[in-house]
Amino acid sequence: MNPIASTPAPPYFAVLFTSVKSSVNDPEYAVMAARMAELAAQQPGYLGMEHAGNSDGIAITVSYWASLEAIRNWRQHAEHLHAQRLGRAKWYERFALRVCRVERADEFAFDQ
Amino acid sequence: MNPIASTPAPPYFAVLFTSVKSSVNDPEYAVMAARMAELAAQQPGYLGMEHAGNSDGIAITVSYWASLEAIRNWRQHAEHLHAQRLGRAKWYERFALRVCRVERADEFAFDQ
Repeated sequence: MNPIASTPAPPYFAVLFTSVKSSVNDPEYAVMAARMAELAAQQPGYLGMEHAGNSDGIAITVSYWASLEAIRNWRQHAEHLHAQRLGRAKWYERFALRVCRVERADEFAFDQ
Repeated sequence: MNPIASTPAPPYFAVLFTSVKSSVNDPEYAVMAARMAELAAQQPGYLGMEHAGNSDGIAITVSYWASLEAIRNWRQHAEHLHAQRLGRAKWYERFALRVCRVERADEFAFDQ
């Protein structure tokens, strides 16, 4: 599977979630992360997601959306709100959320 | 060090670089990546950088900039152009570049 999201021509929107995990090693975290990725993909206006994470708990997740309204709706989804509460209480030491408007996008593939 | 960039109040700009490394295992890559991070930080309009990378070669690097002009200047920096050529020729199987305007940003830190 291509880990680079196939997104339409800009403009569209991106949510950058940069996180540092807490020292709590909770097996429920991976289950919830997978569930949130699955659930996000079912939301109206969802365009795709990209994720990379270091072994030391630093991760960047980018989700792409057709509109700011789609982002607002996903943020307020009941099951997502529950996950957000657990994230703040247990899983993350800190995180930043940035909402962006994607102005230009290019993808390149190479033969080495 | 906080892996989350300390950025000013929006609006500002972000370059999302999502990459898949090629199977070439070139020790020069890490040297060049460190050099590019150092050099980017010296450019006018540079605001910060965040990075996360999986062990399987998928990485997301986000750099933050004060203006689109600052992004253009960095893209055209001679030493950066040289690194870009090597990246396309050797180091990456594919990558996406997205230029975004950051509209809203929030950072949270928790005591667990």
